[in-house]
Amino acid sequence: MARAWHLMSRPSGMPVAENFELREHATPALGEGMIRVRNLWLSVDPYMRGRMNDVKSYVPPFQLGEPMQGGAVGEVVESRAAGFAERDKVLHMAGWRDEAVLPADQAQKLPALGVPDQAYLGYLGMPGMTAYFGLLAVAEAKQGDTVFVSAAAGAVGSTVIQIAKAKGMTAIGSAGGADKCAWVASLGADATVDYKAERPLVRKLTEAAPRGIDVYFDNVGGEHLDAAFAAANDRARFAICGMIGGYNSGEPMTFRYVMAIIAKRLMLKGFIVTDFMSRMGEFYADMGAMAAAGKLTSEETVHEGLDRQVDAFLGLFSGGNKGKMLVRL
Amino acid sequence: MARAWHLMSRPSGMPVAENFELREHATPALGEGMIRVRNLWLSVDPYMRGRMNDVKSYVPPFQLGEPMQGGAVGEVVESRAAGFAERDKVLHMAGWRDEAVLPADQAQKLPALGVPDQAYLGYLGMPGMTAYFGLLAVAEAKQGDTVFVSAAAGAVGSTVIQIAKAKGMTAIGSAGGADKCAWVASLGADATVDYKAERPLVRKLTEAAPRGIDVYFDNVGGEHLDAAFAAANDRARFAICGMIGGYNSGEPMTFRYVMAIIAKRLMLKGFIVTDFMSRMGEFYADMGAMAAAGKLTSEETVHEGLDRQVDAFLGLFSGGNKGKMLVRL
Repeated sequence: MARAWHLMSRPSGMPVAENFELREHATPALGEGMIRVRNLWLSVDPYMRGRMNDVKSYVPPFQLGEPMQGGAVGEVVESRAAGFAERDKVLHMAGWRDEAVLPADQAQKLPALGVPDQAYLGYLGMPGMTAYFGLLAVAEAKQGDTVFVSAAAGAVGSTVIQIAKAKGMTAIGSAGGADKCAWVASLGADATVDYKAERPLVRKLTEAAPRGIDVYFDNVGGEHLDAAFAAANDRARFAICGMIGGYNSGEPMTFRYVMAIIAKRLMLKGFIVTDFMSRMGEFYADMGAMAAAGKLTSEETVHEGLDRQVDAFLGLFSGGNKGKMLVRL
Repeated sequence: MARAWHLMSRPSGMPVAENFELREHATPALGEGMIRVRNLWLSVDPYMRGRMNDVKSYVPPFQLGEPMQGGAVGEVVESRAAGFAERDKVLHMAGWRDEAVLPADQAQKLPALGVPDQAYLGYLGMPGMTAYFGLLAVAEAKQGDTVFVSAAAGAVGSTVIQIAKAKGMTAIGSAGGADKCAWVASLGADATVDYKAERPLVRKLTEAAPRGIDVYFDNVGGEHLDAAFAAANDRARFAICGMIGGYNSGEPMTFRYVMAIIAKRLMLKGFIVTDFMSRMGEFYADMGAMAAAGKLTSEETVHEGLDRQVDAFLGLFSGGNKGKMLVRL
């Protein structure tokens, strides 16, 4: 029997363990063009919270009673699809379960870039693409810019820091607590902001960026976004990637410095990583080279076993991870 | 003796009459390269409020004790500058006074476009350029788009409505009260939103724009901007021109729908009209043709006499104007 996590009720506010149930399934026989995959690594990502609401959005909501989905890396154990053989490693979206049966065209063989398998769920996967295209394409960050990124100890933010440094930018990251800030600094950040420390965030940011910021990569919204308005230089560009601060609370956000948009001619641009799927080749080439040159290091917070999937997910919202949050099966 | 309004104290919050004083001046003899202008029309504009604060911004603050400045149209009465003769009509920034003495290179002769002189303070002047480049260059509005503009009964907003219609767009304008909304409709707006009427603005806007909005031209910030987040279509563009709602209060602004920036991939861009000065020729050509074709009508709220200048200015913040607010001398 295979096992999969199902969404049993929609969270109101912060998700709780009771929203999910781990169920057993008879494993189906394999149809033509299908593969059976034993999952090795499962991803949890903040965007999954949005799919738990029953609202029209850029990805359809998870269905009640149905298995959850999400990024996963696994090994093919049975194939009825041309081009896929047993022991091939694949990346796919049928996560939150130990065994997946899926059409082969929904799986992608891992490129041979000489990195650990789970990197394709992190800095060489969706979070990495989010960092790469958000920084370079959406915010048009370039050599010499000062870049500020929030949630810099997360999977996306920590990659933004490293790409910024590899490309000759000044990088400033915010994270919660001295330990995470030290880790962000160890990635090469020129300055860090501990958002949990005393004193207003705007004060801490303007001290950390005495010459202002040219780019803000927003993962959290709220007070961080407001501080970025205050610290921005003329014509600064903001890539609006996430607002994890608002995913669960549904509370309105209040801004004191929003009028800077006019006086400083700021540009804010929301984006979704899937808009950049057609440029995946460029991403692998550039990031693969950086990885080979030792310019990308990865930290992972790993939970062991499928039973821990929900704990891993909930940990995203309590700052429980340093780097990429993963479940290893 | 000439007379000029001086800034005597900096407003805290809403400006009051006591911040200003009308003073007499001996009129200086004319130096080489200078002209003396008898002003005919004086402008008051919302941006002037910002210059009354003693803060670094895109234009330097007005100096305490010194004469105010602002757009004006006048007639040359004495000239020691090549190319300027008595009776020439000129546009310049030495407003808030009846007579101005200034270097000729700070004055511009009125183009011969067959429109009333005061149009160069309105739809063929700074407010018109703001509307034109904000809509077409910043927000990249194009034929077929649905455009929402706030403060649509103001000098900028009413011009946005008319340009949008002349260019084959659907135009929706908000204004305060049935009378102003009727006037906005008379300019060609496809729908109007009375922001003073009962019911939440977001509800009224989504009813007025059942297929959503592609462009938002923001003059007010606050609740209007929030409603635009809610009503926006995917990839809508927001030209952030003004936030008159925040100029005086200094209160933070609260947004309930700001997370739409991500899900809908919105683009927000602040701008300042002076960034487009180099494209003034294009503006006069296109707007002049529209004016000649009868596609631009102007409404003015006119106060008579220099004594009324401060009343005219204060009226901008209480919704006292329909169209361009002017003082005629």
